[in-house]
Amino acid sequence: MRIIYDAMGGDYAPLEIIKGAILAKKELNIQPIFSGNREIIKGVLSELEENSDDYVILDAKSVIENDEEPVIALRKKKDSSLVVGLNHLVENKADGLISAGSTGALLAGGLFIVKRIEGVERTPIATLLPTKTKPFLLVDTGANVDTTPELLNQFAIMGSIYTEKALNIENPSVGLLNIGKEEGKGNNLYKKAYELLSTNSKINFVGNVEPRELPYGVVDIVIADGFDGNIFLKSYEGTAFMIMELLKENLAKIDDPELAGKMKEMIYGTFSRFQYSNLGGAPLLGLNKPLFKAHGISDAAAILGASKQIKNFVDNSVITTMINELKELK
Amino acid sequence: MRIIYDAMGGDYAPLEIIKGAILAKKELNIQPIFSGNREIIKGVLSELEENSDDYVILDAKSVIENDEEPVIALRKKKDSSLVVGLNHLVENKADGLISAGSTGALLAGGLFIVKRIEGVERTPIATLLPTKTKPFLLVDTGANVDTTPELLNQFAIMGSIYTEKALNIENPSVGLLNIGKEEGKGNNLYKKAYELLSTNSKINFVGNVEPRELPYGVVDIVIADGFDGNIFLKSYEGTAFMIMELLKENLAKIDDPELAGKMKEMIYGTFSRFQYSNLGGAPLLGLNKPLFKAHGISDAAAILGASKQIKNFVDNSVITTMINELKELK
Repeated sequence: MRIIYDAMGGDYAPLEIIKGAILAKKELNIQPIFSGNREIIKGVLSELEENSDDYVILDAKSVIENDEEPVIALRKKKDSSLVVGLNHLVENKADGLISAGSTGALLAGGLFIVKRIEGVERTPIATLLPTKTKPFLLVDTGANVDTTPELLNQFAIMGSIYTEKALNIENPSVGLLNIGKEEGKGNNLYKKAYELLSTNSKINFVGNVEPRELPYGVVDIVIADGFDGNIFLKSYEGTAFMIMELLKENLAKIDDPELAGKMKEMIYGTFSRFQYSNLGGAPLLGLNKPLFKAHGISDAAAILGASKQIKNFVDNSVITTMINELKELK
Repeated sequence: MRIIYDAMGGDYAPLEIIKGAILAKKELNIQPIFSGNREIIKGVLSELEENSDDYVILDAKSVIENDEEPVIALRKKKDSSLVVGLNHLVENKADGLISAGSTGALLAGGLFIVKRIEGVERTPIATLLPTKTKPFLLVDTGANVDTTPELLNQFAIMGSIYTEKALNIENPSVGLLNIGKEEGKGNNLYKKAYELLSTNSKINFVGNVEPRELPYGVVDIVIADGFDGNIFLKSYEGTAFMIMELLKENLAKIDDPELAGKMKEMIYGTFSRFQYSNLGGAPLLGLNKPLFKAHGISDAAAILGASKQIKNFVDNSVITTMINELKELK
């Protein structure tokens, strides 16, 4: 399997991206294709004592930065690591692409270069989030705002296919993000979405779920408009980070080094399950090729995680299944 | 100052409500008026060694429960502690009312019995939330979904008046809940609200705020549609609770009682700033009389906190100021 790695995107690019791809080559038998500045990539490979002849490198002179307007950047920077990678992908010279760079640019590239599956109106980002128990897939975490009930229903179908096929969860349960459990709760969008989801025989809809329950892992998939999904995601992350910071500050005030060491071990152990690298990347659902967004702070372990996911995605024919299921809907 | 306490509403009613009101009488010189079953209230007062002749009791035979449809319950249960209390309030026999019972019923009672200030279209709930640093006021935490940019602008004016007058914060900073910092981020509602807020000379608007920053206390007031505000609120609470639970579970696994004791002290100390009782209740903004919603799990300390807030609210003429400021808008 050939995976394209946007070697220049992400806070720890290119080093951690390349390291992660090398791990994927060794552990998953993936054939990495790097997109980015050839000299820099060769330099990193040589530092890591890898033979650069063992890797395909697509030379790309520029990088799309996080603060650039995605659609404009995509048009202007034809020689960027992302655009060069995506063009290689759509020529069927690879099976998927991973980028830890600009989310907006990856989304725009998905729409304009890779293109949507017929019948798919919007491509949500599906992010797997850790909880106290099992993780759940949040669809959408920010790609589409001002959605409609019909779009949320489509997100639920695509999320279910991905979860069943690539995450290997049989008949995954689907919840609708809402401010109350009962039917009829929420705003107009969610009230109407509830109606569609509850009569959709393609999914295992279990009803509304409140943000308060989500950290406990009560369902496999949570459907939300991208605005609300992003609000939840950033609240969840931000709260956990803030509490971790407070605990660290209080740890630093403890004089007894042995006591501090034991406390640190317990606290860090508690938070370890929330590490990104355990979960890898987030697919853009509904495109003709697998595109995975890795977190901006991805290290090699996270890139390896994303590689595993994209491998599952391809091995289990997620896209073919989506094409067939969405065809039936029409 | 005369405050009506819905003695029957809340998880720890009537005992903790009555205890809190007694504290408010002693510490704040408030004259408590209890609304609820006279015999039960008298019994509790006698248990607490208080002379029931020192208190006004409005006899109310029923209670509106959390799971009742608010508007229907309000109409049917004329003899409920809430309705009896609200009727007493609008006869100008008291200065404000506190209830830890059904939020929906309190909101409906506000609309239909107390009524809105002229020019106010919707009454948001303004909840003060603890952070790593100073608390902030979230307006709206769930009273109004499917809002408009104009409503959010009005929430910002009312929230600013309340914060300046009752919370004694000069020129409070106002942020708009959003999924990105820059102008132009978010859905149509928030994009248009940004325009209105940024040209509103009555408030100190500082721009969009992301949920990730909010736990750090970056602004005094955050404006949101009630759906999104509720999503944030419940995510924030739920995440903190879940982490606290995980830490408690890991604490329970520690064999050495001395070590466990010290860890417990540090962890509980870290979370102590997030206690509800420190912050008290949440006002419904834009009504002709002060109504405060206390948290369902309120204990006596929380009821005392809410009493302090309602005292500040009345002492600082929040409602008169709102009437004048909203008149100018027209």
